[in-house]
Amino acid sequence: MTTSSVNPAVRRVEVSTSGASYPVLVGAGAADAVPDIVAGATSGRRVAVVSDSNVASLHADSIVEALVAGGMVATLHTFPAGEAFKVRKSWATLTDELLDAGVGRDACVVTVGGGVTTDLGGFVAATYMRGLPVVHVPTSSLAMIDAAVGGKTGVDTRAGKNLVGAFHAPRAVIADTDLLSTLPKAFYAEGLVEALKHGAIRSDAHFEAVRDGARGLLDGDGRGAASIVHDSVRIKADVVAADEFESGLREILNFGHTLGHAIESASDFAVGHGAAVAIGMVLEARLGERIGVTAEGTARRLTEALEPLDLPPADGLDLERVLAYLLTDKKVRGGRPRFVLLERIGAAAVDGGTAHDVPDEVVRTVLVEALN
Amino acid sequence: MTTSSVNPAVRRVEVSTSGASYPVLVGAGAADAVPDIVAGATSGRRVAVVSDSNVASLHADSIVEALVAGGMVATLHTFPAGEAFKVRKSWATLTDELLDAGVGRDACVVTVGGGVTTDLGGFVAATYMRGLPVVHVPTSSLAMIDAAVGGKTGVDTRAGKNLVGAFHAPRAVIADTDLLSTLPKAFYAEGLVEALKHGAIRSDAHFEAVRDGARGLLDGDGRGAASIVHDSVRIKADVVAADEFESGLREILNFGHTLGHAIESASDFAVGHGAAVAIGMVLEARLGERIGVTAEGTARRLTEALEPLDLPPADGLDLERVLAYLLTDKKVRGGRPRFVLLERIGAAAVDGGTAHDVPDEVVRTVLVEALN
Repeated sequence: MTTSSVNPAVRRVEVSTSGASYPVLVGAGAADAVPDIVAGATSGRRVAVVSDSNVASLHADSIVEALVAGGMVATLHTFPAGEAFKVRKSWATLTDELLDAGVGRDACVVTVGGGVTTDLGGFVAATYMRGLPVVHVPTSSLAMIDAAVGGKTGVDTRAGKNLVGAFHAPRAVIADTDLLSTLPKAFYAEGLVEALKHGAIRSDAHFEAVRDGARGLLDGDGRGAASIVHDSVRIKADVVAADEFESGLREILNFGHTLGHAIESASDFAVGHGAAVAIGMVLEARLGERIGVTAEGTARRLTEALEPLDLPPADGLDLERVLAYLLTDKKVRGGRPRFVLLERIGAAAVDGGTAHDVPDEVVRTVLVEALN
Repeated sequence: MTTSSVNPAVRRVEVSTSGASYPVLVGAGAADAVPDIVAGATSGRRVAVVSDSNVASLHADSIVEALVAGGMVATLHTFPAGEAFKVRKSWATLTDELLDAGVGRDACVVTVGGGVTTDLGGFVAATYMRGLPVVHVPTSSLAMIDAAVGGKTGVDTRAGKNLVGAFHAPRAVIADTDLLSTLPKAFYAEGLVEALKHGAIRSDAHFEAVRDGARGLLDGDGRGAASIVHDSVRIKADVVAADEFESGLREILNFGHTLGHAIESASDFAVGHGAAVAIGMVLEARLGERIGVTAEGTARRLTEALEPLDLPPADGLDLERVLAYLLTDKKVRGGRPRFVLLERIGAAAVDGGTAHDVPDEVVRTVLVEALN
């Protein structure tokens, strides 16, 4: 893995957990290192590249070619693009395809795509012959900043998002910011929502950097992308290193997500992950302000910072469905939804635990005000 | 977990791996400790008991009752008995049932049954909300001696056995030899095949103890069961502790299994696991003798020791199908099947690696002699 030091534009963040330590390479041209990194991750030469029907021709084909040129035996395995296909059926179909293709225990899986692909392809790797090494090549800002880092893999079920899955640390994550040039603006904004979240829970300075840089990035000025991705990944790596399995501190990464997941599910995924988490962050800030945990004005700062992202409005959400999904969210303990709250921008409220119980009537009131 | 010290008939084997350490409690009456052990494995009070349609009324119902009497909220979730149901569909159905029942992240899974149940229920636990703690209560000799110990979970696919799964260490394994009284003789014999295997790879003395005790156990004299289960588990624990993820030494536990799995699959599971592994061990001993790795007479000693078990004959196997399944076995590396071979009874051949390449013509010749 010397390639990263050859290209001065590529910076490295080390993610260390009890079970594994792996690099996230961030920068323009980082994907050139894929063949070297895959070669270092496997004793064999067999590589199964997993991608979706959109990204396959944009990026995965050329990565397969580079792997083959590097002496590997690489095959491409695709599934239909979209969150609706992040389900057990796609996982089973991809698994059977790999089995039919003779992919063995000494193979390596490479995912090329957005968060759906890194989650689904990561789950295929986690459960194929009880676990193959996986290298993620995220192609969306969301996957670079969030989904590909941290070892979470999984699929959705009718009961909600990510309810089935496994922790399976990647051997490496390669975040090539050049690949973002093909990303539609609306998807780009999704990643910036998570970047703002990382700022909101750990760093006011990062929050402001994302807020100030967002408009330029969305308008095609890619210069700031690498530093925003790098700094966001570093925050996530710090939190994950402190708590691999989400029993404590890691939970703060779920800020905005308890309500966000419920909104996504209740909309049958018509509301995208980024837009849903954006609403979730603002509303969870309001919850915190109502019960005196979060500083006044926090929800307003979040709203202002999210404005340049031009996220689609979440019209027509059914309040009762959102509340019903809240109760099956996987963060439910003892039948009650629990929320990560901020103390202020830059600091999650962690005194007395990371997840907070909020009275039902407060949740209902805040949701009624926002959704009706 | 003080119960085990209260009952002098219950002995404890500690299984230590890099990621986890857990006890296997072995002996008559060990299941009395289930409520205490489950209470120690979870911060909540919710327990999902997984069992099959045969074992539910025999043993799982009473374990649910004991858990409820111990203050837990326990529900029973069953699937149709048999290896044919150790598939992704059963896993998805059980998962959905748990989701519908509101089983949350702080719950514990308890499996009650044979190896199919501990494998399938273990995989449900491994992948439910990215992992719930699991306690195995094996009710067959095979599951006590082999399946429940070691952290392997998984399901079969059309391409072969256990090709999808995860490593997920249990919090405890409770091997109550009293539960074996309901086990049909043919199933009891399956476990003794694995006990003989443990002797074959690590201890001539254990091999002889199992051989000498087998007839009595099968005829209903249960006195020797606890010591055979205990000593077998200790051998497996030693091997697993040395190599958690099957990259090296642990592979010797697969003695008899490369051919055994191929025979099971090629028979569409008409040949049971124990009978298939029994044939696999004898034939793999012959392979070893042919290529000069295994001492002459080893296959003969295996055949003699297996005789009292009255295993069903494996009639009508299609040689070409067995060979085809060999090539998709998960132990295939670089497209070639690899075999664990013995040096002699009591010692696997581990010089130059645990898995051996055997020339195709030798495999074919030995199979032709045995199956035609």
